[in-house]
Amino acid sequence: MDKFSNKISETVIRRMPVYHRYLTELIENEVERVSSKELSLITGFSASQIRQDLNNFGGFGQQGYGYNTKQLKEQVDKILGIDKTYNTIIVGAGRLGSALARYKGFRKSGFKVTSLFDIDDSIKDVSGIAVRPMDTIKDYIRDELVEVAIITVPKEACKEVADILVDAGIKGIWNFSPYDLKVQGKIAVENIRLNDSLMTLSYFMKEL
Amino acid sequence: MDKFSNKISETVIRRMPVYHRYLTELIENEVERVSSKELSLITGFSASQIRQDLNNFGGFGQQGYGYNTKQLKEQVDKILGIDKTYNTIIVGAGRLGSALARYKGFRKSGFKVTSLFDIDDSIKDVSGIAVRPMDTIKDYIRDELVEVAIITVPKEACKEVADILVDAGIKGIWNFSPYDLKVQGKIAVENIRLNDSLMTLSYFMKEL
Repeated sequence: MDKFSNKISETVIRRMPVYHRYLTELIENEVERVSSKELSLITGFSASQIRQDLNNFGGFGQQGYGYNTKQLKEQVDKILGIDKTYNTIIVGAGRLGSALARYKGFRKSGFKVTSLFDIDDSIKDVSGIAVRPMDTIKDYIRDELVEVAIITVPKEACKEVADILVDAGIKGIWNFSPYDLKVQGKIAVENIRLNDSLMTLSYFMKEL
Repeated sequence: MDKFSNKISETVIRRMPVYHRYLTELIENEVERVSSKELSLITGFSASQIRQDLNNFGGFGQQGYGYNTKQLKEQVDKILGIDKTYNTIIVGAGRLGSALARYKGFRKSGFKVTSLFDIDDSIKDVSGIAVRPMDTIKDYIRDELVEVAIITVPKEACKEVADILVDAGIKGIWNFSPYDLKVQGKIAVENIRLNDSLMTLSYFMKEL
């Protein structure tokens, strides 16, 4: 289960984007330094948890000063690897694929959508981004050095698409198909499980 | 932090949709019973973890038999509250809102989208579902007994929209705006943080 047992735990990693988010806000509001106590109030994590998390990556805080927001954000971004840009494609040019293609927030995180792919040849582009036929996807991934693929195809097609991507040498898959994608080899996969989240919402509503 | 300290932990709750998903698959494949060991192989959770999780809800397994898949799924669905239907609206009829309006999977989980709302009066409907003006939203929520709202508006508008929803008596909010929504009172909120997931993907790619 734990792919990173000799490294930092997944739980810690999943808190890093939260630090990124709040540090970005603090910097936007021209806050120059922040203590672990203040970060605790904003994030809801305990101050000792925060110190421990950030110590994992070298401990950048100073006694009596706290953290310099800009420096800390730079470190967090470096840890997350979002200080670089990933060429990204979207497989599936339907509503969800198109919505994701237009969303500017991903670009900010370093994910640059350069093309979409679809089995429907009649769709030519989405907001100026080309939609290419599926049979050209392998060549495109190799020629354009694509590292990330976002999958928005129907559940039934997800595994087949993933096999093609893996074969073409993709490094990361962001999967929106309601299919629990697992791949072999050195490939990172994030499954977005919207239905799981809806069911959790349902539970919490019941318990109100 | 822990709103449900006297109840079941959130970690356990977040595993319930996983049971739901795999039990649905087992039933589709006409598997009538399953042991905690078999469930462990499928889900990746340990067998003792599974037994413990399900015991939280009354313990439906039988020594030497395991679990009846259909009965277990019925129980899981009941726990999750997805054996009922929630009238649902989408606020924000842009690309993402429209994509979500068309997605059939939510209906299966009991969320029935009856209307969208948008500040842009020129959008009249999305695949046959009416788009209504924002100034009618409070009346609609009250008159149509809407329990759930999906927010897909830009970040800047999220808090304002949420205040209106809360004021109108909504019970659950599924928030896709990149804004960390917190609301007062007896309202369930699930924030979908797509950017957080992308950053986590970025980290895992770096560590490959």
